[in-house]
Amino acid sequence: MKTFECIKGGVTAAAGFRACGVAAGIKYEGRRDFALLVADRPAAVAAVYTLNKVAAAPVLVDRERTRSGRAQAVVVNSGCANACTGEQGLANARETARLAAEALGVDESLVLVCSTGVIGVHLPMARMAEGVRLAAGALSVAGGDDAAHAIMTTDTVDKQFAVELEIDGQTVRVGGMCKGAGMIEPNMATMLGFITTDAAIEAQALDEALLSAAGKSFNRVVVDGDTSTNDTVIVMASGAAGNKTLTTRHPQWQDFMDALTMVCVELGKKIVMDGEGATKFVTVRVKGALTVEDAQKAARAISKSPLVKTSWFGLDPNWGRVIAAVGYSGAAVDDRWAQVYYGDVCAYDKGRVAGKDALKPMQDVMRKRSFDVTVNLNLGNGEDVIYTCDFSHDYVKINAEYTT
Amino acid sequence: MKTFECIKGGVTAAAGFRACGVAAGIKYEGRRDFALLVADRPAAVAAVYTLNKVAAAPVLVDRERTRSGRAQAVVVNSGCANACTGEQGLANARETARLAAEALGVDESLVLVCSTGVIGVHLPMARMAEGVRLAAGALSVAGGDDAAHAIMTTDTVDKQFAVELEIDGQTVRVGGMCKGAGMIEPNMATMLGFITTDAAIEAQALDEALLSAAGKSFNRVVVDGDTSTNDTVIVMASGAAGNKTLTTRHPQWQDFMDALTMVCVELGKKIVMDGEGATKFVTVRVKGALTVEDAQKAARAISKSPLVKTSWFGLDPNWGRVIAAVGYSGAAVDDRWAQVYYGDVCAYDKGRVAGKDALKPMQDVMRKRSFDVTVNLNLGNGEDVIYTCDFSHDYVKINAEYTT
Repeated sequence: MKTFECIKGGVTAAAGFRACGVAAGIKYEGRRDFALLVADRPAAVAAVYTLNKVAAAPVLVDRERTRSGRAQAVVVNSGCANACTGEQGLANARETARLAAEALGVDESLVLVCSTGVIGVHLPMARMAEGVRLAAGALSVAGGDDAAHAIMTTDTVDKQFAVELEIDGQTVRVGGMCKGAGMIEPNMATMLGFITTDAAIEAQALDEALLSAAGKSFNRVVVDGDTSTNDTVIVMASGAAGNKTLTTRHPQWQDFMDALTMVCVELGKKIVMDGEGATKFVTVRVKGALTVEDAQKAARAISKSPLVKTSWFGLDPNWGRVIAAVGYSGAAVDDRWAQVYYGDVCAYDKGRVAGKDALKPMQDVMRKRSFDVTVNLNLGNGEDVIYTCDFSHDYVKINAEYTT
Repeated sequence: MKTFECIKGGVTAAAGFRACGVAAGIKYEGRRDFALLVADRPAAVAAVYTLNKVAAAPVLVDRERTRSGRAQAVVVNSGCANACTGEQGLANARETARLAAEALGVDESLVLVCSTGVIGVHLPMARMAEGVRLAAGALSVAGGDDAAHAIMTTDTVDKQFAVELEIDGQTVRVGGMCKGAGMIEPNMATMLGFITTDAAIEAQALDEALLSAAGKSFNRVVVDGDTSTNDTVIVMASGAAGNKTLTTRHPQWQDFMDALTMVCVELGKKIVMDGEGATKFVTVRVKGALTVEDAQKAARAISKSPLVKTSWFGLDPNWGRVIAAVGYSGAAVDDRWAQVYYGDVCAYDKGRVAGKDALKPMQDVMRKRSFDVTVNLNLGNGEDVIYTCDFSHDYVKINAEYTT
């Protein structure tokens, strides 16, 4: 995969977009909790949503609206998820979009809504209206940074990334922002991701590109194994770059795909890096599985195992827990053929256990902020990679004290 | 289900069995880590084993031997799991059984072996031999208590339970011991369970009874969602009670089933109560699911969710996390029909969220050492129950520091 030069600007790096983040007092006073992202003209749009059967009201609304392949604005609030809120929740989501459409002079059906925060609480509509009013007046082509801060919940840092590439001799930018720190697991999580590009691209091709990129990024990320009700990733393309409209047959299609994938992967990694209470960023690689599906099952089981995750926190190369997780993952495994590595240090080699002298090198690997754990099953060619983190005291602390 | 009078004696409550627990120095000096359970004569035997594809050497040996339906002795060590130990591990498991057979004057094929402890370490065979020698001389009809202590690893208390009933006018006893505190999840866990009865029973009927009882007890228990490589539950029947041999057609078959189930359920609950770092015992009930399978999926997802488990620890009735877990469990769910209860207090009722005045009653429920969380999906008749516990600071502490 090609890589590209990283640039500043996040969700407003691409031409044709403005954004902002304002304080609407939705849950806390005096912090930004309301973001707006607006394209100058109706843009091509694609989106992926949570697979959780309990989907929040904004997800239900956006799913319907993004089918058209066109959108112009996204309203995002933190502090309230508008999930499990019944008919009233749906009405509130639609009313939020209507208010924004009115303030922006945009067709209502082109306005999307996203919410993140506590489940089962209704949107405070007076404050949402105030948010729309403030945000409509604060939009700026340099507003990506404010927007990235406004969508944070338990996130400790804002998460933005953007790249620049050339297509048809024109400079094209792909940039985005996301939020998410807990309830994170493959197939989406309480994460919201917003990506913009000034590339001209067909909506159907954009859809295909996002599905592929999400499969390599947001769907490869595990914090705690909980899939949320609100997960949404939206990509909008303004076409302002002036390239020939991208389709899957465009000679530089792969370049665009690589750029979008790179942005999604970097944003996904930022979520893991900021995982609730996380002290370690761990790349779990499974190789040599009988099938790709087996590799995925094994990598996810390792990444979700509380015993494995706490051992990482404790700098304990407890490879037995790793291989036990593979054993119950459903993947084919024969421990007489399997190998487990911490970084480049072999902990377990086809029935032979590393000697005591391997302990220090393995712990040296684990002392780094970021390291790899690799399992080679030596049964086939199936591979997968998952980006994940450890479980620390602070994970428990943060999550034991969230709503009350 | 009938209940029965609880009696003392654990695994030696039933006539025809002797047991003991001795210190063989397998991992730590001066603590009991080696147990022996012996029937006076070859007994009917049934067993269930881990579904983990990475099965420990003793599991491989016992799986083969219990097929005959007869066994006379079980050797158990803690401190070393003898898992991921290859051919040498298998040879060591068989040699342990051979040593015990020799010391006890019992047919080698009737000796079973169980190990629990660290994965990937070979059994210290000189110490195992010493354990056999000491244990063979320490066997006693009152040795159940010593044995129950010898099989503990991170367990903080020994786990025993026994009942008495009458069959064909004869007093029959069913008693057992188990160990297990971490790596606990349905379909077995690093748990070992040993049950004895003096009932006369056909081996095939015993097999059927154990499968049913395990399905209602050990397989309904979740601590952390990790399934271990060593899980084993063995039941032996001496026939010393003198009843007419039990088969599924015996008029008091159901009484025996109920007694065995009661012993298994009580032992299973003791594992959850002693869950690593656990401060709460939670009974998760799912009702009204479309199918029993859906109820099981939903109950397990709730019981395994780190977000749900940390909220219990924090006395936080965060029902949104409960319903989100159901949503990603794979079970059919419509949040407009679902209800969530903490004890008898309704937190979420078909789209309506409990008012602020429900918070205190819910927290009062959660302040108890043991409480119920019930989800009614109102879609069908599928039901399931899972016994589980919370995730505390101490879970992380215990598991971050286990091997090193």
